[in-house]
Amino acid sequence: MKGDTPQEEIRRHHLGAVLRQVHLAGPISRAALANRLGLNRSTILALATRLTAAGLVREEASGTTGRAGRPSLVVRPESGRWYVLAFDVAVDRLVAARVGLGGLVLERREAPRRRSRHADLDEVVGVLAGFGRALVDAAPRSARCLGVGTSYCGLVRAADGMVLLAPNVGWTDLDFVPALSRRLGLPVAVGNEAHLGAVAEHERGAGIGQQNLVYLHGDVGVGGGIIVGGRLLGGDDGYGAELGHMIVNPFGGRSCNCGSRGCLEAEVGEAALLEASGRTSGPGGRDGVRAVVEAAENGDEAARKALDRVGDWLGIGVVNLINLFNPGVVVFGGTLGDIYQGAAPQVHARVAASVLPVSRGVGLRTSMLRDDAPLVGAAELAFSRVLADPLDALASTAP
Amino acid sequence: MKGDTPQEEIRRHHLGAVLRQVHLAGPISRAALANRLGLNRSTILALATRLTAAGLVREEASGTTGRAGRPSLVVRPESGRWYVLAFDVAVDRLVAARVGLGGLVLERREAPRRRSRHADLDEVVGVLAGFGRALVDAAPRSARCLGVGTSYCGLVRAADGMVLLAPNVGWTDLDFVPALSRRLGLPVAVGNEAHLGAVAEHERGAGIGQQNLVYLHGDVGVGGGIIVGGRLLGGDDGYGAELGHMIVNPFGGRSCNCGSRGCLEAEVGEAALLEASGRTSGPGGRDGVRAVVEAAENGDEAARKALDRVGDWLGIGVVNLINLFNPGVVVFGGTLGDIYQGAAPQVHARVAASVLPVSRGVGLRTSMLRDDAPLVGAAELAFSRVLADPLDALASTAP
Repeated sequence: MKGDTPQEEIRRHHLGAVLRQVHLAGPISRAALANRLGLNRSTILALATRLTAAGLVREEASGTTGRAGRPSLVVRPESGRWYVLAFDVAVDRLVAARVGLGGLVLERREAPRRRSRHADLDEVVGVLAGFGRALVDAAPRSARCLGVGTSYCGLVRAADGMVLLAPNVGWTDLDFVPALSRRLGLPVAVGNEAHLGAVAEHERGAGIGQQNLVYLHGDVGVGGGIIVGGRLLGGDDGYGAELGHMIVNPFGGRSCNCGSRGCLEAEVGEAALLEASGRTSGPGGRDGVRAVVEAAENGDEAARKALDRVGDWLGIGVVNLINLFNPGVVVFGGTLGDIYQGAAPQVHARVAASVLPVSRGVGLRTSMLRDDAPLVGAAELAFSRVLADPLDALASTAP
Repeated sequence: MKGDTPQEEIRRHHLGAVLRQVHLAGPISRAALANRLGLNRSTILALATRLTAAGLVREEASGTTGRAGRPSLVVRPESGRWYVLAFDVAVDRLVAARVGLGGLVLERREAPRRRSRHADLDEVVGVLAGFGRALVDAAPRSARCLGVGTSYCGLVRAADGMVLLAPNVGWTDLDFVPALSRRLGLPVAVGNEAHLGAVAEHERGAGIGQQNLVYLHGDVGVGGGIIVGGRLLGGDDGYGAELGHMIVNPFGGRSCNCGSRGCLEAEVGEAALLEASGRTSGPGGRDGVRAVVEAAENGDEAARKALDRVGDWLGIGVVNLINLFNPGVVVFGGTLGDIYQGAAPQVHARVAASVLPVSRGVGLRTSMLRDDAPLVGAAELAFSRVLADPLDALASTAP
């Protein structure tokens, strides 16, 4: 904070670093903390004591025995005392969860969302606010809410959290954050669903420990979240990583929801797969995509061909992303997780043929958090303030 | 350094920050330094005094008059006392320069490089070492060399500075750095030419003050350097930003030097332009590309058509990069600077048609440093050690 001495500034930074470790790594010994953070044990002791006094962590026996027969102590997050609310507004469902410090999902609610060309802001906010109140009411009396984070299946402007959508290319700005915040009586942080999915896979999923990660997220469209040097790529305004709108098939490519042609989304999105497999009249969404993958596995010729075609385009997109980002891992999430599982040979063939030889060691993985990656990322977004400066965040959290 | 107190660590960090400002911004008042770095004036005074004592900067009258009629003081880099050697190994030329602290090119040498399918490591190292010695010999007796930085037109492995080339798809590793280092008797830092070009344009060219920048570099091939959140995108191994190997034309596209097909490099590189304009028998290289652009401007139909075609593909590549990086500016360097100047309407048309509406405000610019962007970036690479920790760097610089 302003006016702090350099020592106090460093102490605040270190407190946040310790709490982040405890939050992400779970119960962890002081020795391991000292090791990971490059701090000496007396510093860690002082920091852990301060976090314990604030009620954010507690130290307790780990169950194993340490040196000299003494019970080994571990630092644990106080998951029951501190929580955040996390929301996920996907194309076809609304999810809400109460997530404890340490990342434990304590309770969750879910509702389907109708697909509509009309704005359903009021409806979405109404459902989420209802979920939010119910989750808060169900929490123990002594528990405190540290923040609210939301994932939204649209572009999110970094400067003010405005959500932007392209429903059939008539772009609209959505006052989602102020509306939800008003209804909850709490400040709300928001992020793009694929950006938050990337954060979640990076911190708690298939990309733990990676410095460079590309996350592809399939919903109706195709989004992306990219970690560069350990940090989420945002771009000037928060619109970075829109890998679904990378043109891979400029001539003769399919029309895209964005108004362009031959975008990756147009070639590998839900509509491309359903059309190619002749299933436009059946169910869409996650279920529709999964039905095609399943049918292909069961020998359905049309489904197999459609999946192969989509997998080939997906492979081209992945080649480009690997050559651009030289990541340690590429993670396929949402419906693209299913598509990748069903069309991995096509993707691998493109990678083997066209990725620069030096970058072919990259790992290709299915999302570990599956459909919940954006929700988990939304929770991390909500926790970010307390992890940046624990004592300052607590001071401004209502009792 | 290890064992420093937190205060000493902060002081070293601040010393580097002040020196970086003086190095990049040129003569600058203490008040402006305090303002830019968010430090108070007494701290700046102490830091400037320490840097002055080390001989890295000096304070002198700016020529203008400050408040109360006193001559206004500015902090200047001691450009005559401290320099680096910068080298650029491009496909068709070798350049060397002595660059003073503050970025002033004090002296430069250049030689053509023959295009050859055979390794010319010894020849390249011989020429550069000769240039290096001559530049050092010509320096004033009192001047000291702070480091050596080299740009190379090949992939550079971050871990050890190994240069990797793909001469007609037989990939080779090149022991360039140890060889040059041995000949010069000095440690040598190396970077990919387009990465360093991006750094140069970001710090001293068309992208000053930008947080997110995409730099496209045309030599024979097409390279890239990308600044994300103020930092160079490297990727896990240093092979990031290979935007020349983004596939834009997967079916029916031209063969690429990397072994793939339809890469951006294959569609907009030197060979594509020369072939499309029917000029394969004439001069290649920068001169060949510039001749096509000039002919198109003078009404040559074949040249115009070739340039339009290449400009269209370049536009598709730029669309993808803007949608992925949401940059403030896209900079065209090397021969792509000429191509962009000759085909800007094609590039703009693609951007207008296919970049997400929210990101269309991006600036498209020609490189300010032109062919010297990689050389300037190599100098910055050489300066990076002293800017990170001035006193530590001086302590280990031979007198």
